[in-house]
Amino acid sequence: MADLVVVGSVALDTVTTPFGQVTEALGGSATYFSYAASFFTRVGIVAAVGQDFPREHLDLLGQRGVDIDALTVLPDQKTFRWTGEYGFDLNEARTIDTQLNAFAVFKPDLPATYRHAPFLFLANIDPDLQREVRRQMTKPLLTALDTMNFWIDGKRDALLAALREVDVLLINDAEARMLAREPNLIKAARSIIRMGPGVVVIKRGEYGSLMVSDGEFFFTPAYPLENVFDPTGAGDTFAGGFMGYLAQRGLTDRASVRKAVVFGAVMASFAVEDFSLDRLKRLEVSEIEQRYAGFQSMVAVED
Amino acid sequence: MADLVVVGSVALDTVTTPFGQVTEALGGSATYFSYAASFFTRVGIVAAVGQDFPREHLDLLGQRGVDIDALTVLPDQKTFRWTGEYGFDLNEARTIDTQLNAFAVFKPDLPATYRHAPFLFLANIDPDLQREVRRQMTKPLLTALDTMNFWIDGKRDALLAALREVDVLLINDAEARMLAREPNLIKAARSIIRMGPGVVVIKRGEYGSLMVSDGEFFFTPAYPLENVFDPTGAGDTFAGGFMGYLAQRGLTDRASVRKAVVFGAVMASFAVEDFSLDRLKRLEVSEIEQRYAGFQSMVAVED
Repeated sequence: MADLVVVGSVALDTVTTPFGQVTEALGGSATYFSYAASFFTRVGIVAAVGQDFPREHLDLLGQRGVDIDALTVLPDQKTFRWTGEYGFDLNEARTIDTQLNAFAVFKPDLPATYRHAPFLFLANIDPDLQREVRRQMTKPLLTALDTMNFWIDGKRDALLAALREVDVLLINDAEARMLAREPNLIKAARSIIRMGPGVVVIKRGEYGSLMVSDGEFFFTPAYPLENVFDPTGAGDTFAGGFMGYLAQRGLTDRASVRKAVVFGAVMASFAVEDFSLDRLKRLEVSEIEQRYAGFQSMVAVED
Repeated sequence: MADLVVVGSVALDTVTTPFGQVTEALGGSATYFSYAASFFTRVGIVAAVGQDFPREHLDLLGQRGVDIDALTVLPDQKTFRWTGEYGFDLNEARTIDTQLNAFAVFKPDLPATYRHAPFLFLANIDPDLQREVRRQMTKPLLTALDTMNFWIDGKRDALLAALREVDVLLINDAEARMLAREPNLIKAARSIIRMGPGVVVIKRGEYGSLMVSDGEFFFTPAYPLENVFDPTGAGDTFAGGFMGYLAQRGLTDRASVRKAVVFGAVMASFAVEDFSLDRLKRLEVSEIEQRYAGFQSMVAVED
């Protein structure tokens, strides 16, 4: 049973930043997403790992109440691996190696209990896989999708087909420009809206985010942090806060979507404070509430 | 008589952007500043031009009620000239040529009516000249300063001395990092506050601005524009809206300073919509009010 279903990667990440390194740490878009969303709602993961995937990682997700019934362990496969590094400009990751492994052969088959879930997140993964999961869902109240330059370049047609079937696109600014083939971000957002999703949430790293829908803009800053250790997973954690909040409320109205963006920014601000999911593992609900209030006070102007 | 005094450059700018070019157009930090501030308050310019400065530019300032009694025309001098260009990344200007001309010999002597003005802006100019103007003022309620990489690199000691004598620093993000010698922007802002100004307003171009004071952050987005023609003068126009609003109100409390930041962002958003002061020349007060309301709605979250 899940109010929110996510399909995406569950991975082992090797990451180098100016502040340190981790080797084969727990990562992946569906992992960050579901862990963040678990603070708000009941979330189920659709993904595949290999037989080498450490048991402790499954336990970690289970302890947070993440439903892992559809997290398939594929025999004779290895887990997805990503190796990347960041320079002092933490806004941009350099991918050194990607091994799809289990995801190269994964054919999702959603449990019956997932197919009626009201909220669906298609995390950054092959757009054909995103479409297949969307096809198996009855009629979600709201579907959101994330993607990256790799698919924009390599599987544009499949991605455009996927975009026609979703309500919200979450994407970073460089990728929004690339997808729309337009350098001006506002024009790019408007062009993307014409591709299908009624709402585009553009993530701009340390500059916060910008939501664009028909005739409406909503800006949220990034939380001002003195120490950012590792931006890996920030976007997926943002999406987890965003979709988790909406699924908790069961609403998709404008005011709720704005709050959801702020909760996305709140969750992302924690994710980057340590490697892998380490900061999220120490996170208390009271800290989420506190930082949400902090966001409000950072943009408020009295009348 | 002036409620707000500015010292800075009055210049002839030759600017190339991907969208066009202007040659020896009206420019300069004090020009953009005073023109923007004139929508809010009575502002006086302290600056020097050469005998080649076109009369029509003086008339333009005079028509907006800018006090030009202390805008000295120096005999046998030429006007300050700046030549610069922008690529598609409009956040960064490339200076091709700077000719100080009149400013190389300018010795300001403030009219008695200026010396008691409550608000003072030391626009981007030689920090020794900024200090000399500050010295001639009786006791302004609030003094703000802008600077640039040229002075941070070339006259660091004079600039640090100037910073000890001001309340607010307006600066762009790259320059804040350079001044503080610190890549993290939040740490940089805190370090600058220890240099003297209690408030730092960091301008981040298309990403908006961030105000940092003791224990407080305030973020404002940039207005979402589909067409940015020329960012020249955006920072000075921002400062003009900021200081103009404060001088109009005669206040320096936290709530007023936040509103002033938004008015700064509003004015800057108009400046970039055309070359030189061309958009500001067509600007109506009702447009300022409308865009201010727009800023409010772009960050508002209902409780």
